Amino acid sequence: MTAIEKSVAELASLVGGHVVGDGAVIIRRVASLSAASAGEIAYLEDEKFLQTAEESKASCVITREKLAIDTPCRIEVKNPKLAFALIAEVLHPPKQRAPEIHSSAVIAADAKIGKDVFIGAFVCIGEGSSVGDRTQIRAGAKIGDAVTIGDDCVIHPNVFLEDGVTVGNRVILHAGVVIGTDGFGYVRAEMGYHKFPQIGTVLIEDDVELGANTTVDRGALGRTRIGKGTKLDNMVHVGHNCDIGERVVIAAQTGISGSVTIENDCVIGGQVGFGDHIRVLSGAVIGSKAGVLPGKIVRPGVWWGIPIQPLDEYKRLNAHLSRVPHIREELKELQARVKELAQELRKHNE
Amino acid sequence: MTAIEKSVAELASLVGGHVVGDGAVIIRRVASLSAASAGEIAYLEDEKFLQTAEESKASCVITREKLAIDTPCRIEVKNPKLAFALIAEVLHPPKQRAPEIHSSAVIAADAKIGKDVFIGAFVCIGEGSSVGDRTQIRAGAKIGDAVTIGDDCVIHPNVFLEDGVTVGNRVILHAGVVIGTDGFGYVRAEMGYHKFPQIGTVLIEDDVELGANTTVDRGALGRTRIGKGTKLDNMVHVGHNCDIGERVVIAAQTGISGSVTIENDCVIGGQVGFGDHIRVLSGAVIGSKAGVLPGKIVRPGVWWGIPIQPLDEYKRLNAHLSRVPHIREELKELQARVKELAQELRKHNE
Amino acid sequence: MTAIEKSVAELASLVGGHVVGDGAVIIRRVASLSAASAGEIAYLEDEKFLQTAEESKASCVITREKLAIDTPCRIEVKNPKLAFALIAEVLHPPKQRAPEIHSSAVIAADAKIGKDVFIGAFVCIGEGSSVGDRTQIRAGAKIGDAVTIGDDCVIHPNVFLEDGVTVGNRVILHAGVVIGTDGFGYVRAEMGYHKFPQIGTVLIEDDVELGANTTVDRGALGRTRIGKGTKLDNMVHVGHNCDIGERVVIAAQTGISGSVTIENDCVIGGQVGFGDHIRVLSGAVIGSKAGVLPGKIVRPGVWWGIPIQPLDEYKRLNAHLSRVPHIREELKELQARVKELAQELRKHNE
Repeated sequence: MTAIEKSVAELASLVGGHVVGDGAVIIRRVASLSAASAGEIAYLEDEKFLQTAEESKASCVITREKLAIDTPCRIEVKNPKLAFALIAEVLHPPKQRAPEIHSSAVIAADAKIGKDVFIGAFVCIGEGSSVGDRTQIRAGAKIGDAVTIGDDCVIHPNVFLEDGVTVGNRVILHAGVVIGTDGFGYVRAEMGYHKFPQIGTVLIEDDVELGANTTVDRGALGRTRIGKGTKLDNMVHVGHNCDIGERVVIAAQTGISGSVTIENDCVIGGQVGFGDHIRVLSGAVIGSKAGVLPGKIVRPGVWWGIPIQPLDEYKRLNAHLSRVPHIREELKELQARVKELAQELRKHNE
Repeated sequence: MTAIEKSVAELASLVGGHVVGDGAVIIRRVASLSAASAGEIAYLEDEKFLQTAEESKASCVITREKLAIDTPCRIEVKNPKLAFALIAEVLHPPKQRAPEIHSSAVIAADAKIGKDVFIGAFVCIGEGSSVGDRTQIRAGAKIGDAVTIGDDCVIHPNVFLEDGVTVGNRVILHAGVVIGTDGFGYVRAEMGYHKFPQIGTVLIEDDVELGANTTVDRGALGRTRIGKGTKLDNMVHVGHNCDIGERVVIAAQTGISGSVTIENDCVIGGQVGFGDHIRVLSGAVIGSKAGVLPGKIVRPGVWWGIPIQPLDEYKRLNAHLSRVPHIREELKELQARVKELAQELRKHNE
Repeated sequence: MTAIEKSVAELASLVGGHVVGDGAVIIRRVASLSAASAGEIAYLEDEKFLQTAEESKASCVITREKLAIDTPCRIEVKNPKLAFALIAEVLHPPKQRAPEIHSSAVIAADAKIGKDVFIGAFVCIGEGSSVGDRTQIRAGAKIGDAVTIGDDCVIHPNVFLEDGVTVGNRVILHAGVVIGTDGFGYVRAEMGYHKFPQIGTVLIEDDVELGANTTVDRGALGRTRIGKGTKLDNMVHVGHNCDIGERVVIAAQTGISGSVTIENDCVIGGQVGFGDHIRVLSGAVIGSKAGVLPGKIVRPGVWWGIPIQPLDEYKRLNAHLSRVPHIREELKELQARVKELAQELRKHNE
């Protein structure tokens, strides 16, 4: 990989920033404030690290506007962390493998393969499937029949896409992702379980990223969807017929039962559990390890606990609960006091 | 895939149902009430959807017996959802790949391969292993040495079966399933951990289905077993020496420590955690996200919470706990009242 | 696999034990007390199983020193379970595959492959990578570019190591492990999320073992590390920039967010969730299903619950909480009693 070089002035212009210092300084890498060395750019987000930034060996530091700081060279912007991410996209673009179809790949005769595609060793692509331009399908990925994959995707090693799955443009599927397997639905008969039909589809929209070993089941009769720009961490489970909106973020190991709707722009922590037929309204934030009961409608706001409550109420109730030992003591004291009073009164009455 | 066509009369006879309307109508697919169109059959489970059923464009609706409903054609049965599942099995049978052994597959010389078997690209089958008739082993699955796989199984892509694992008939293993890895057992010595021997086996009985990326460890010294007709969802972890009975259902991301016994016909929710050496008695139902302490015996009934309690008790205690803020207020009021009384009494005594 | 045979005297000498009985007896396998038969050795850990040991058909039983027990032959040691594990290492060594590089493997021209290495079918090894002596890389494992793997490792089927990952000596990676994928970090912009750079590395030190389908993300800018002798169970998630120390044990399905430090010799249960930027100090033990809030410092001791509390406090508070229904009753009684007193007093005053 040949290194990319940009001047501070070029990077500032890229992010709409203002250079304070020498715009001709050359930058080759992003780094953290404390680990950076010459040729690297870092960013300062939280001003409690101001001293770290001043002592940093970075050739340039990205800061917020009009910050009182002593550095040899910096770029001032509104959102330093975002600018840092945008600069990193330029200096460290995702690896673009040279177009190639490995001789060991098994590709159906009628599969449509776009331009400048990379297909690694031991990949399978089934009948009637199509792969968009510049998409990379890495070693060992298995693509079923009638699968559609858009442009500029990266399908990492050992991913599996079952028959009929549709994947948009610029989608990243990390290693071990499984999409389109049968959902978990059975009907109990006298002698055991019969599979409820699992014959629907899956739609993964543009700019989605799914973490390693995440699984997305196909719809039972309808469709499972993951909306544009949504990001799932490792080992998330998405059940049949879920409808996850756009720009949703879901942290690792969260499990979503069948027919759950999560609207646009929700943020879901790790290890959260959703019962089936829940609707999470746009703008809701659900804390890690929360549990949401089946059928629940979750309104905008911050939610916490098992089952979920508004974070404020959760905190308030927990503060009360932590006082229960004290309540027991006070109750005992009061019981004793009442007994005394009763005795006093009785004495008085005698 | 050539479509399968059946008349309503044929389907009714298949499920022991009674036709109300024209039995000659042709059906090609199952669908939901709201999405169905001509040539499709749907079912009505819950009568709150009666109007949806009456407005459905399905060519036939399956309903319970003697239901007052206005549809052009329907099949009356005792259990509409079960009938729907059985009809779906006929109209949408699992994909039966044409028998083939892909030229890239690496199969040990002494492996026994049954009749009409499908073995996909990049499959490995080790020494002394056997594969039953009509079993499908899809691309990239890895079968170790001395593995026995029965008839009519579907082993999906990238599954791994370690040496010595036994799999019954009609077993479905979804993509990424791992069976027979070492269990998690160590003995602490002065300078670190030594592996406790993990040299046992795994038995997966007939009609089991395991979800994507589920893992089942081998027995340490004995055997890990998953009983006939049991269904596990995605990313379930089954530890060494577990004995899971018949017709057990376990939802996604549940984790089962070593040496746990779950008897026949139990139902376990998602994200449940089991400590080791637990015994769950036949007929127990454990709610999602529950935690079961090591060594516990779980009796029939519905269980909930961390650690588990009978659902009734869990609900009752939680109702009480939600009253704690109120208790604190009442206690304060009572303290004030007692103070008043004391003052009154004192005044009176003066 | 040819069976290994050792005399009881040889085994006793191996573990520094003392033979009581005939040291010439031949042992071929380890087994549990109840399942053992002739030629097998078992161990007695807990004296409540003394009778089981006396009735065992094992040819030899390992016990603690100077135990009053009636067996034909035994080995006395300080730590019977550890001795059993050490003997099992000798009688049941991990399978050592004969050195081979399978003809289907795709290995970069400049990759360095050590002596006596096993490389299975459909393995890929990328540019600039190196594999140490006697290491086994099983079928379907995918090794990226610039990956370093030490000596005597076992990389099980379908493992994926991303570019730049470093793995020490004697490391065991079970099937489906994924190391070095992008961490989960985004910066929100107006129209959606931008990836925070994920360009760091992963270091897996000597003697680490990772369970099936476990995932370890690369550092965002720095490094993710798993220290010497540490053992992770199945489906553990390790986020970007985590630093897991030496001899740490983590049970199945635990999730660790970014930038968490877990110091040496900690023990972590299953399904635990860690927020980001936590530091767990050496010697802490965290119970299964616990939740640790972001930024927390966890001191040595035993911790439990969501959020974690010292186990003692957790138990005490829970005992108090279980008394809440009783508190409500007592409070009601006291309210009634105070009312009576008030009436008595009023009557008296009249």
